Amino acid sequence: MLQRYLPILEWGRSYNREVLASDLMAAVIVTIMLIPQSLAYAMLAGLPPVVGLYASILPLVAYALFGTSRTLAVGPVAVISLMTASAAGAVAAPGTPAYAEAAVMLAALSGVMLVVLGLLRLGFLANLLSHPVISGFISASGVLIATSQLKHILGIKAGGETWPEMLAALGRALGDTNPYTLAIGVPGLAFLFWVRKGLKPLLERLGLSPRAADMSAKAGPVLAVAVSILAVIGFGLEARGVAVVGAIPQGLPPLALPSFDPGLIAALWVPALLISVIGFVESVSVAQTLAAKRRQRIAPDQELIGLGAANLAAALSGGYPVTGGFARSVVNFDAGAQTPAAGAFTAVGIALASLLLTPLLFHLPNATLAATIIVAVLSLVDLKTPRLLWAYSKADFAAHAATIAVTLLAGVELGVIAGVVVGLLLYLWRASRPHAAIVGRVPGTEHFRNVARHKVITLPHVLTIRVDESLTYLNARWLEEYVLEQVAERPQLRHLVLMASAVNAIDASGLESLEAINHRLADSGVRLHLSEVKAPVMDGLKRSPFLDQLTGKVFLSQDQAFAELADDDGAPPPAADVLEARGLI
Amino acid sequence: MLQRYLPILEWGRSYNREVLASDLMAAVIVTIMLIPQSLAYAMLAGLPPVVGLYASILPLVAYALFGTSRTLAVGPVAVISLMTASAAGAVAAPGTPAYAEAAVMLAALSGVMLVVLGLLRLGFLANLLSHPVISGFISASGVLIATSQLKHILGIKAGGETWPEMLAALGRALGDTNPYTLAIGVPGLAFLFWVRKGLKPLLERLGLSPRAADMSAKAGPVLAVAVSILAVIGFGLEARGVAVVGAIPQGLPPLALPSFDPGLIAALWVPALLISVIGFVESVSVAQTLAAKRRQRIAPDQELIGLGAANLAAALSGGYPVTGGFARSVVNFDAGAQTPAAGAFTAVGIALASLLLTPLLFHLPNATLAATIIVAVLSLVDLKTPRLLWAYSKADFAAHAATIAVTLLAGVELGVIAGVVVGLLLYLWRASRPHAAIVGRVPGTEHFRNVARHKVITLPHVLTIRVDESLTYLNARWLEEYVLEQVAERPQLRHLVLMASAVNAIDASGLESLEAINHRLADSGVRLHLSEVKAPVMDGLKRSPFLDQLTGKVFLSQDQAFAELADDDGAPPPAADVLEARGLI
Repeated sequence: MLQRYLPILEWGRSYNREVLASDLMAAVIVTIMLIPQSLAYAMLAGLPPVVGLYASILPLVAYALFGTSRTLAVGPVAVISLMTASAAGAVAAPGTPAYAEAAVMLAALSGVMLVVLGLLRLGFLANLLSHPVISGFISASGVLIATSQLKHILGIKAGGETWPEMLAALGRALGDTNPYTLAIGVPGLAFLFWVRKGLKPLLERLGLSPRAADMSAKAGPVLAVAVSILAVIGFGLEARGVAVVGAIPQGLPPLALPSFDPGLIAALWVPALLISVIGFVESVSVAQTLAAKRRQRIAPDQELIGLGAANLAAALSGGYPVTGGFARSVVNFDAGAQTPAAGAFTAVGIALASLLLTPLLFHLPNATLAATIIVAVLSLVDLKTPRLLWAYSKADFAAHAATIAVTLLAGVELGVIAGVVVGLLLYLWRASRPHAAIVGRVPGTEHFRNVARHKVITLPHVLTIRVDESLTYLNARWLEEYVLEQVAERPQLRHLVLMASAVNAIDASGLESLEAINHRLADSGVRLHLSEVKAPVMDGLKRSPFLDQLTGKVFLSQDQAFAELADDDGAPPPAADVLEARGLI
Repeated sequence: MLQRYLPILEWGRSYNREVLASDLMAAVIVTIMLIPQSLAYAMLAGLPPVVGLYASILPLVAYALFGTSRTLAVGPVAVISLMTASAAGAVAAPGTPAYAEAAVMLAALSGVMLVVLGLLRLGFLANLLSHPVISGFISASGVLIATSQLKHILGIKAGGETWPEMLAALGRALGDTNPYTLAIGVPGLAFLFWVRKGLKPLLERLGLSPRAADMSAKAGPVLAVAVSILAVIGFGLEARGVAVVGAIPQGLPPLALPSFDPGLIAALWVPALLISVIGFVESVSVAQTLAAKRRQRIAPDQELIGLGAANLAAALSGGYPVTGGFARSVVNFDAGAQTPAAGAFTAVGIALASLLLTPLLFHLPNATLAATIIVAVLSLVDLKTPRLLWAYSKADFAAHAATIAVTLLAGVELGVIAGVVVGLLLYLWRASRPHAAIVGRVPGTEHFRNVARHKVITLPHVLTIRVDESLTYLNARWLEEYVLEQVAERPQLRHLVLMASAVNAIDASGLESLEAINHRLADSGVRLHLSEVKAPVMDGLKRSPFLDQLTGKVFLSQDQAFAELADDDGAPPPAADVLEARGLI
């Protein structure tokens, strides 16, 4: 029991020197990668860069204690940073203490929600985000994030919540472009793109092993940071208007309980819920992908608790919402991390960086950070998926397109909500009209097939309908309409057989529709029969009064039903006294 | 096309003298029944009694033009009146012009929504109200309505929105009970209960035909109205504090466009939507029940337009929201109505009553109207359903109980919403964990059955999983977890076969999960195969890149898969270059 909620008790038991060496190695590499990323994502979230470092210390320790993935690396990520900026920006101006407080509150709310969802085992709610919706949301967020960072590359001031607003603001301020900032930003962008595409092959040609080449290429942003800091100092660019990170408070994050402000909670709970769900979905899919590579498993409900603990830790240490990141988790995995302890060691690395390195970052230009963000998020923009979805499923394409459009035009929160609502409506629409077929017997066999597709035998006074779906409240009304329509078209009908071979369940609404069909058919002189009812469904029917009221029989096989009813074409419908005794009239 | 939207063009063509006679007869009987009911329900809605008459004229004509049921009788009904009182009471005090305006606005909004839903063919959204939710809502509404009318029986003033508030207000005011009012209300109640239960058998014993006895018993409330008016006049009870209906403006309803007030629309659109959906669901189920008795059909999407037109007509003539009522439709049907023209003739009857009879109703005591309401709605309270649901399905019982509890404790609107949300969550929870089985071959046959239930043959290096559900975004994550869990437990595994005989569809999320499973299994050296894929599903897969990436094969039958893979236990997993060529690594 305790082990379920504290996975460290399991993997901690077999911890040894070799595993320690692997974990330490991975931690060093992830730390180097995480420092510029944390600063950049905090800037994207509208927070002081140091908050990104704070969010990369205690949350990693908390996840190491409670998380179930051996290799997931948590911390600030791009999409969640954008969502934080959107939510906090709605209640306070960036740079104010109220804004930082809102970010802390988002982490606290998100932490509480994730833990509660985990304890109640409600992880399935994340299913409401379909793949097309998530993919559309991530693509659109990538576009929004990249656009929001262009101002730092140009050295101008520009705001805007939605994409059109951002573009308009950029257009208006374009004249103020600072050439020195541009001279750092554009080469920075070009360099980082080249690192992504060209550095690894080059290093391999120079004799590095593929893995070493890959790891070194991942350190490219650190090189960009170092070079741009030297450039700013060497050419005195601050005096020429190049914005830099400036003074970062040196030291460890201050521990403090988030203020309990009911007004702030009321304003932020919806975005906090969306941040929680998006963060969870992203994180779990990364964790599952990596776990499968080593035939390991993660426990999704416990993952909710692990991520919740990480966010509560972020809230306690002046950070902002965190989740498992794709890029850093892959680096952690490739660098050989064996257990969550690698995350704890990374936390120590970032803590040391907070204590020692922050003075070095004073002269780091914002343009360089913006370039690392742009290069990172443009890989999120997925141009292939819309085409694949269009070819595969128009409904899924519609959910995808709606998510992208609403996210770009009305912001991230409405984008997620629109995606969920459109996806759910399309699902309900399809669920409300399942597949059903009128079937007949294939000559010379006991098989029954769709009359529209096969040459089969049918009888004028017997109609057999096979429903290829469980009978639930979503299709109960459809079932009544469909059956009564078929009966209304056949005045000579005496028997209706519902072939239930594909009915895995019947809920109370489905049952009531069967009762209504039974009543209405009795009114018009037709008996209702069932065939091939599955055992668990039959058990349920026996607990209800339905079988006592049924005007016909339940046949074990459709073949039996067909054979027995074939001879019963002259029989009158049930007499009125029989119906009355059964409570039907 | 025109006939689809104007069903009168169809049935009007074959209209003749005989049908006219039947329709006229039914109209007379329904008119007599409708007069006290309309007054009573208007009082329940917190509106002047005459509004109930207004809502029973033009809406009936509109439905006769646009509705598809031959026998549905529309007009004010109990539950919708209660919902109107709740919604209008939230924006204005009963008795004020603003309150009446809110009621008109509710009818207008409801009319527009119903017509739009009908034109967009969105009737399936009503499916979100499951039978247990509707039944719970109607029961709880019956209790609320009956409780709200007790004050008229007691002759006291008492308010309250929720049930506990109502009971507390009644308790506080109990000392003010007016004995004369009580002396009308209690015998009135007793008489009307007796009319329901005892009058019909008595009339039959006196020699009336069962149908005539039934019809006469339905006129019982008219007798109660007449006797109590005479009692009030004869004993001068108004002077002794018995509240009466008072002056009713004589004449036809004034025609006027509802005021377009954006603030009012913003305040009322949610309750208007709930009124529309509840009204539609009620009305359609009544219409379907009656249509089936004569092997007729109704068109649910056109019903939306018919009810929408009726509500727009109510809004134009100073009424309030209307829908098809159960009791009056049954009377209409039993009295022999053949076409919607019966409804139009009823409208003429009510119009004549408005012109001529209203002076007679001056002395009608409110207690008598309250008694007719109480007797009518107590039959809505359904004590059997909770027990049946508890026995049949705990999930459905939970939705039922939640709807009742929230309706009683927090009001009708939250009650409906709670029912929809709980029902949907339970559905999604079940949909997110479908049934799947590990199957093996029944010895000596080509059949494959669940290993947990049958003695079957399995192979250590081949695992076959049969999924009894379409693969959609709601269960995509479950599929990944389930499959990877099974694989993680079997280190000797080489082949995984997904038997898709019960998979009716695969949406984009399901497809992506299959792709992810394919990738992850490849990482751990296991090939993925499919078997028994249905033709339409296969067509979809062919439009995607999935089949090119699949590490295994698609087998026509599970038997083929089993036979072919049985010999393939020593084969190494696909070579890295093959995987790379397929884009897998």
